[in-house]
Amino acid sequence: MEPGIKVEPWSYTPRPLGEHDVEIKIEYSGICGSDMHTIKQEWSGTSYPAIVGHEIVGKVITKGEKVVHLEEGDLVGVGAQVYGCLQGDCNACSRDLDPHCPDSVFTYNNKYPDGHQAHGGYAEAVRVNSNYAFKIPAGIDPIYAAPLMCAGVTVFAPMLRKGVKKGDRVGIVGIGGLGHLAIQYASALGAEVVAFSHSPNKREECMKLGATTFVDVSNKDEIDAVRHSLNYLFITSDSQANQYNDYITWMTFEGQIILLSLPKGQMSFSPREFIIGEVAITGSLIGGVNVLKKTLEFSAEHNILPIIERFPMDKINDALERVNDGKARYRAVLENSPSSNL
Amino acid sequence: MEPGIKVEPWSYTPRPLGEHDVEIKIEYSGICGSDMHTIKQEWSGTSYPAIVGHEIVGKVITKGEKVVHLEEGDLVGVGAQVYGCLQGDCNACSRDLDPHCPDSVFTYNNKYPDGHQAHGGYAEAVRVNSNYAFKIPAGIDPIYAAPLMCAGVTVFAPMLRKGVKKGDRVGIVGIGGLGHLAIQYASALGAEVVAFSHSPNKREECMKLGATTFVDVSNKDEIDAVRHSLNYLFITSDSQANQYNDYITWMTFEGQIILLSLPKGQMSFSPREFIIGEVAITGSLIGGVNVLKKTLEFSAEHNILPIIERFPMDKINDALERVNDGKARYRAVLENSPSSNL
Repeated sequence: MEPGIKVEPWSYTPRPLGEHDVEIKIEYSGICGSDMHTIKQEWSGTSYPAIVGHEIVGKVITKGEKVVHLEEGDLVGVGAQVYGCLQGDCNACSRDLDPHCPDSVFTYNNKYPDGHQAHGGYAEAVRVNSNYAFKIPAGIDPIYAAPLMCAGVTVFAPMLRKGVKKGDRVGIVGIGGLGHLAIQYASALGAEVVAFSHSPNKREECMKLGATTFVDVSNKDEIDAVRHSLNYLFITSDSQANQYNDYITWMTFEGQIILLSLPKGQMSFSPREFIIGEVAITGSLIGGVNVLKKTLEFSAEHNILPIIERFPMDKINDALERVNDGKARYRAVLENSPSSNL
Repeated sequence: MEPGIKVEPWSYTPRPLGEHDVEIKIEYSGICGSDMHTIKQEWSGTSYPAIVGHEIVGKVITKGEKVVHLEEGDLVGVGAQVYGCLQGDCNACSRDLDPHCPDSVFTYNNKYPDGHQAHGGYAEAVRVNSNYAFKIPAGIDPIYAAPLMCAGVTVFAPMLRKGVKKGDRVGIVGIGGLGHLAIQYASALGAEVVAFSHSPNKREECMKLGATTFVDVSNKDEIDAVRHSLNYLFITSDSQANQYNDYITWMTFEGQIILLSLPKGQMSFSPREFIIGEVAITGSLIGGVNVLKKTLEFSAEHNILPIIERFPMDKINDALERVNDGKARYRAVLENSPSSNL
């Protein structure tokens, strides 16, 4: 209702179900860092009341008349985007970059072209464009599918696009909701994975998830041992801006640093390594329809699952507090009661 | 002899001619920004006396016994690198990235493994590994070939590697020695070229060189007209660090900013565009053997020539002063007298 991490029940009248839309009865809803930034209004302009949540899993209960690829009862997931034009002449959608489609609608704190507010998954139901409702593969337990819809695709999309492969050395900074999935995807793609964390007590878990090396970033010897060795470095934590000059020295020439979360403040670099090392810094924003499908397929095939903490929907404020304190290991998922009378 | 832009005659005994080496009687030697930084010791550690110059054109006068692809009398060019291992198992050389070869030797202010100092092209002659002496195509007037050996390959190498092509919009910041060549290469590759300069009096020349748009960077309307439109932006001037936040806003999503010269001081960015726009920042360092060959071929085929100012070698101090003052349009080339008694 207002900036902060306390939420309360609120009802809204959804926009009319369009002919390409589905209505989904929500069973599970993951809590994403973006949700926290939005409800706390740490990013510009939250429109209150706001219903956040873009790691949604549930069953199709109604569908528009032109929806052919989904049936009532299908178990589907919804991520951070609920509409893109998906036209062949769209410079974004035609390259599997539909988050950049000029017509894109994001799952919450965003408006449809008809003026209706888009609301997210901390709810009993949601209506979305059916192209952005993805069948959950049979091999994935539905509650575990929820965090794949944002955290999963966010880390896997740039690995796919960059072509991470066997023989590459991939660093992951920050072992949390995104990082613990990133280790698994990079490892399943055949890369050697170096996990970087301030928490030495995560060492064993990182190795179990597929890391070949764990680096305690407060240990200079461990850092020195990996300098100039990484082909890719995925930044999943809100690093401080001044850490980037050090990150660059971990990269081999042509190494790529990919930001998956926004550091606080301005980033500052010595430019030398850009030229001498031909190191690149870039970022990545979720993934389009085809990338989300591939993420779910790849996750099912390689048995990639998030480690989660479960909270009933009516304990949502406890869950938000735990995520806000950085205590959730590694992703919190809200569960609606099956008896919800929707 | 010491930090500064005044140079004076000096002699050295070259290392013995190796079996894979050639000795070249130098006819032309371009003046590169790196030469200036080195003789002024603006980069760390210049070893004096230093003979700089890595845009060398001349004739082979002696060759080692194992040199088969060059003959005495051949007209060749030498760039910024004079040795790389070029082995198939080298992670750098095998990917046409021989400037990153662990065994690389650069043309000046660098040492060979045997301890001999490498000296450059402000000289009567030079000995280099024959793999790094490139036949100048018949279509290129030799004096114009000199600036292609560093300035040319420096701008063309990343265009080749990134795959700049028809339909791309390519920005060039800084219309000088590198920039005026970058316009020509990008245009010959079929891209729309946007030239950015503080000097509106370069507008007409940029259009002649192949630019489709000229932007006076002090004109806000002209800047606003190109925001979020560029696929690539090549930075050829020593921009101030704080300009980069503005550069990012000129890029379309997935746009790439490529540094070809080192900005002064630390670069500072708001990280948002890395994620929201998936913009990348990287740099590029000269080019390997195969890239240099392609640069010469492509230049000959598309009649890409630098605009030069000529100075006899004995006027070198005048030439250095003019380059140091930023007055050379656009590349200064030193000429040895043909009667040099070497």
